[in-house]
Amino acid sequence: MFSVNKPVYILSSASVVGMEEADGPLGEHFEVTEKKDDTFGCNTWEKAENEMQRVALGMAMSGAGMREDKIDMLLAGDLLNQCIGSNYGLLSYDIPYIGLYGACSTAAEGLMLASMMCSGEGVKRCASVASSHNASSERQFRSPLEYGGQRSPTAQWTVTGAAAFITTSEKSDFDFFERKSKYVPRITAVSPGISLDSGVTDISNMGAAMAPAAADTLLRFFKDSAQKPKDMDLILTGDLGYEGTSILRDLMKSYGTDINAVHNDCGLMIYDRGRQDKHAGGSGCGCSAVVLSSYILKKLRDGKYKRILFVGTGALMSPMSLQQGMSIPGIAHLVQIEAEEV
Amino acid sequence: MFSVNKPVYILSSASVVGMEEADGPLGEHFEVTEKKDDTFGCNTWEKAENEMQRVALGMAMSGAGMREDKIDMLLAGDLLNQCIGSNYGLLSYDIPYIGLYGACSTAAEGLMLASMMCSGEGVKRCASVASSHNASSERQFRSPLEYGGQRSPTAQWTVTGAAAFITTSEKSDFDFFERKSKYVPRITAVSPGISLDSGVTDISNMGAAMAPAAADTLLRFFKDSAQKPKDMDLILTGDLGYEGTSILRDLMKSYGTDINAVHNDCGLMIYDRGRQDKHAGGSGCGCSAVVLSSYILKKLRDGKYKRILFVGTGALMSPMSLQQGMSIPGIAHLVQIEAEEV
Repeated sequence: MFSVNKPVYILSSASVVGMEEADGPLGEHFEVTEKKDDTFGCNTWEKAENEMQRVALGMAMSGAGMREDKIDMLLAGDLLNQCIGSNYGLLSYDIPYIGLYGACSTAAEGLMLASMMCSGEGVKRCASVASSHNASSERQFRSPLEYGGQRSPTAQWTVTGAAAFITTSEKSDFDFFERKSKYVPRITAVSPGISLDSGVTDISNMGAAMAPAAADTLLRFFKDSAQKPKDMDLILTGDLGYEGTSILRDLMKSYGTDINAVHNDCGLMIYDRGRQDKHAGGSGCGCSAVVLSSYILKKLRDGKYKRILFVGTGALMSPMSLQQGMSIPGIAHLVQIEAEEV
Repeated sequence: MFSVNKPVYILSSASVVGMEEADGPLGEHFEVTEKKDDTFGCNTWEKAENEMQRVALGMAMSGAGMREDKIDMLLAGDLLNQCIGSNYGLLSYDIPYIGLYGACSTAAEGLMLASMMCSGEGVKRCASVASSHNASSERQFRSPLEYGGQRSPTAQWTVTGAAAFITTSEKSDFDFFERKSKYVPRITAVSPGISLDSGVTDISNMGAAMAPAAADTLLRFFKDSAQKPKDMDLILTGDLGYEGTSILRDLMKSYGTDINAVHNDCGLMIYDRGRQDKHAGGSGCGCSAVVLSSYILKKLRDGKYKRILFVGTGALMSPMSLQQGMSIPGIAHLVQIEAEEV
């Protein structure tokens, strides 16, 4: 765990989502929602993902009242081979660009690195972006949607969504915001994950592959920070889904750290289980990115939450590594966010 | 450009290469060379790349006299889909893991982030690793080697190699080294690249796609740092090859900054152009990683070089982005390394 002692704030954030996400319980909280067909006006799914990233960053910058030349670094990643979702999506921005690969943990990875950069010397402001698109992901990792393959009960639904965050160590940047909200989200500690392979080989059960990594990161964090789950208003994992969530809660309990009272998972929150047929819940880089950037950060800005842990979870395999008989390593990066009165 | 004011040193480095690289002009400088068939004892090319990364990091840690628990963060990446070269290659190390995607600029991206982390608070030591394997890359980006496709004159040869670097902000870590060399390599400034798309669509001419990004980063750096090429003993680009090198030198001259007297490229150095048939030179994440980690850092440790610029170059496309008619964005991250007397 690293304390982020120099104050680093999440100045603004924005999310862009597809139709299914707009139709879910958090739909009203997203800034941009696709109404027609999830193509975002593009002729391929990959370009649609580019467009989501481009729009999300543009909106987050507008929200911060900030132009490109004020932002020192842009950290971004996605699930596509060679991270083309970010490489092309953010090409129009003249900001020094740091490509990340953290699978579905990318939103947390980006925020973690951004806060560490901003707390050092030199860098004042960072942007971080993460995305996934259901159609581009499914055809790359499993099979094209047109194939219509039957999904297993533990399978999750890759979220179509992108979110961008602007972090700053300059308190004066908030002059723009003081009129809007009493509290601002401040990143106070981070804990990078150690990758762990628990032997799961089922590409339709990513929750099981990621849950042990989430437990490992949480247990290390509670030990290092001398805090307990009850010190948090929320422990929010990225995309464990129903299967992974029950594994994580059981694992934590078996280690004597019960998180049930304060735990939730973005993959459980983004779709309505009864009405939307999404099996084990949402997943993908976009899942945790859009839930945090919208609904959760609003609750911090409103002072409803005082302190939360955001734990981005990722599965670090590829279709080829599975074909070669390897199991799925998981990783979980943790970011502690507190509401600070401005 | 960001100055790295708190001293951050490259404590140790190690490189692992394949047979062609061992047979090249720098062969004697690499720590581990494959003698038999570039499989490194594994049954797939991807696992061979994993093994190179694992061995490189292990040797760099041994060289630094350092165990896992002393290293705060591990930053790594490669060219394979979902970065499985690093994800699986480094799985056996219990070090917090940050996945990067910077294509062939990954070695520079990792060193840059590592030095920024180490110069901040909290993080004392980082490891960074990058790799590529000719056989795993060729089949992913172009065609399997067995296909025997004819290569175009501008095509480069993906280097089979991995290198690891240990950076530290703790001067006491050098007690181990003072007996070995008079100078230690210190990272004194970094300049993250802005991605640039110059419209190149030929996957067999990556040098042309990356050269404009290298020029952009160098020009920004010289302007920000108020230095000139003659202040450097060497300006070392990553893998522009013969085609990209001549474009970069011409571009720089056209902007009034002649680098010819001090410029070299890892892709030109790693193979013997007369004896080894490698067309436009070497490329891949491994190319710049192994040349820097071995031959170049030795020259800094010996005091033969006092100040160099290491400019990692990357091409941020994927086979699918090219199939969809997109051109190839390039990026170049710069790290200034100086020899400091200990």
